[in-house]
Amino acid sequence: MKRILVTGFEAFGEDRINASWEAVEALPDVIGETEIVKWCLPVEYDRVEGCLKGFMEELEPNAVVCVGQAAGRTAITPEKAAINWMASGTADNAGVKYEGVRICDDEVAADGYFASLPVEKIEAVLKKAGIPAQVSYTAGTYVCNRVMYGLLRYLRQQASPIKGGFIHVPCSSDQGAENPRLPSMSKEMIAKGLETALEVIAKA
Amino acid sequence: MKRILVTGFEAFGEDRINASWEAVEALPDVIGETEIVKWCLPVEYDRVEGCLKGFMEELEPNAVVCVGQAAGRTAITPEKAAINWMASGTADNAGVKYEGVRICDDEVAADGYFASLPVEKIEAVLKKAGIPAQVSYTAGTYVCNRVMYGLLRYLRQQASPIKGGFIHVPCSSDQGAENPRLPSMSKEMIAKGLETALEVIAKA
Amino acid sequence: MKRILVTGFEAFGEDRINASWEAVEALPDVIGETEIVKWCLPVEYDRVEGCLKGFMEELEPNAVVCVGQAAGRTAITPEKAAINWMASGTADNAGVKYEGVRICDDEVAADGYFASLPVEKIEAVLKKAGIPAQVSYTAGTYVCNRVMYGLLRYLRQQASPIKGGFIHVPCSSDQGAENPRLPSMSKEMIAKGLETALEVIAKA
Amino acid sequence: MKRILVTGFEAFGEDRINASWEAVEALPDVIGETEIVKWCLPVEYDRVEGCLKGFMEELEPNAVVCVGQAAGRTAITPEKAAINWMASGTADNAGVKYEGVRICDDEVAADGYFASLPVEKIEAVLKKAGIPAQVSYTAGTYVCNRVMYGLLRYLRQQASPIKGGFIHVPCSSDQGAENPRLPSMSKEMIAKGLETALEVIAKA
Repeated sequence: MKRILVTGFEAFGEDRINASWEAVEALPDVIGETEIVKWCLPVEYDRVEGCLKGFMEELEPNAVVCVGQAAGRTAITPEKAAINWMASGTADNAGVKYEGVRICDDEVAADGYFASLPVEKIEAVLKKAGIPAQVSYTAGTYVCNRVMYGLLRYLRQQASPIKGGFIHVPCSSDQGAENPRLPSMSKEMIAKGLETALEVIAKA
Repeated sequence: MKRILVTGFEAFGEDRINASWEAVEALPDVIGETEIVKWCLPVEYDRVEGCLKGFMEELEPNAVVCVGQAAGRTAITPEKAAINWMASGTADNAGVKYEGVRICDDEVAADGYFASLPVEKIEAVLKKAGIPAQVSYTAGTYVCNRVMYGLLRYLRQQASPIKGGFIHVPCSSDQGAENPRLPSMSKEMIAKGLETALEVIAKA
Repeated sequence: MKRILVTGFEAFGEDRINASWEAVEALPDVIGETEIVKWCLPVEYDRVEGCLKGFMEELEPNAVVCVGQAAGRTAITPEKAAINWMASGTADNAGVKYEGVRICDDEVAADGYFASLPVEKIEAVLKKAGIPAQVSYTAGTYVCNRVMYGLLRYLRQQASPIKGGFIHVPCSSDQGAENPRLPSMSKEMIAKGLETALEVIAKA
Repeated sequence: MKRILVTGFEAFGEDRINASWEAVEALPDVIGETEIVKWCLPVEYDRVEGCLKGFMEELEPNAVVCVGQAAGRTAITPEKAAINWMASGTADNAGVKYEGVRICDDEVAADGYFASLPVEKIEAVLKKAGIPAQVSYTAGTYVCNRVMYGLLRYLRQQASPIKGGFIHVPCSSDQGAENPRLPSMSKEMIAKGLETALEVIAKA
């Protein structure tokens, strides 16, 4: 049986919820013939890659899909690329803040890596299912990009057959109800969108 | 039994669907003790008020709620006010275009009228139910504002006990799937939001 | 000699500057044959109308143009209408906050009043001069709308020949430099836009 | 004497102007001790890299700065990274359209390259000068990213000492006057922003 490791993030700062973990937690445990293992990651630059690798070694998954919340986005956005850079105006949950520094400084670390998930196919299948979706070309420079870059670099350096990537989801409509100017998506649709994306990944 | 007339709009221009009629059509025929009568209005400046008044005379409703689609909005927005003005860059479905002219030119026609629906209460109840909602202070200057102004002026001049107003809804997620940068809301949530608003109106 | 009273607002909350007063202060003292008198208004619901009327009685102007800052707008926006409503999430500079209440409760106070400035003409002339401009149909429900409604009601009830209205300006590029996601306009262009609008008003 | 090659783009599609070439054309011919050579590039996927390399061979510049227009942006945005991907909904000026394909398919072509311009320093200096600016982490997937990727790959593979990168500018206020909802910046400020950026690059 195939196995996909899917991660969400804990709530950030003063937020009570994080739409990514809310949606990941709601996923079924099996999709088709594929086992879905869900895990919650810390919003911490310096711990997030270590946590993810820990789960990966334990689970030996066929694919790893990290999910994060992107406030302001109107669609489910599979990320095409991660870059070797950390920069943010706000501190992470451990109080750490990077204002423009490489994630990895060794010679062979690339400036950017493409996801090995079928992001264009995911966009197409979601849209066909009536779910707003669009490939994104920037995962930002915060903890989301940090873990995506770490994951892709690890897989590339190992020449690993494991597929990896990142999907950003909009805020959920509960968050939209608190801030009605914020674009949002219902929890049901975010969860259905992720499930549909995982079906595409399982078949790839 | 109380009766509420709820209208949506036909598709505009080259669009195949209009999120307002799609949502109105999906409403139940009875909410609590209140009969819901649904009707579709033309996107035509010069016909829309006459159509609405025709339905009203036939039905003798206790309240009239017109619903329209507001592309770009992120929440269900009950409108506070209509103004005595028509202006738009594009022609309506009959090819008519007004570029800055009063709807009604008689002496007693006010510059603006407030809705007699409990718009603040609707916002509060929807938000509590987890549905993004916010009172809006402009219904625009197109056919939506045209019919809202006509309705409110008619009720005010008749000193009618009928409650009246307008609710804008976001594009539906089917429209968002075609244009992923457009804020959208699932059909289910739009319909649930309208149903909740009608419950508030029925109790008012 | 004709005389126009032009007001801006003091800085709001923790802001150091208010783009409206910055631009008003930069206006020349005479435009063509018209004297321009500039005054700074407090961001206070309960004092702003009294202050404005005090200046008006003293000056006996031919027109009154209040100017305010609208964060998020991309153009100079002459306001078409003010409404009889106060509602805001934040307190004014005196700590006062209204969460949905009429400005004026007497029988003859209209729900809304149109400005008596040539707002469509201002839009057209500014655009022709290469300055982004657009008539706005909501002045919000904060202190800006409060003073605009008070002014228009006063002029209407007095059947005054004085022309009155409100113009919102974008944040200035100094504010944009601090928050680069915020739409902004250079101080020079805001000032040129206001001056051009005053020329239109002086000729009207 | 140092020499910087600065390029803008010709107008795209039915537009009459392109804010990038308008601003580049307005630059002085010498900034400090540095000669500024300006050139206009075609909005064509398949010709743009060849054109740029032609100019570079002829001129032997110390730095190459390509400038493009990014409709919707509110600030001058030096680009951090280019990616090995072409995808766009619309055809270029030659009618060519790529819907998701690598720019360069050889083994050693990286997924992404960082600019060798001091983009963080440019942001900081512009902001200090009161000009809205922000490092961007996506140059899109259209002709702008195409030429930026081509330039950076060429410089990297040659181990060239030439500095290279891309700066996106907002639409100019002339474009904003035609479409007042579009964020824009005055031509004067765009030109001053580019000149300031070139000063930073000349000193680097």
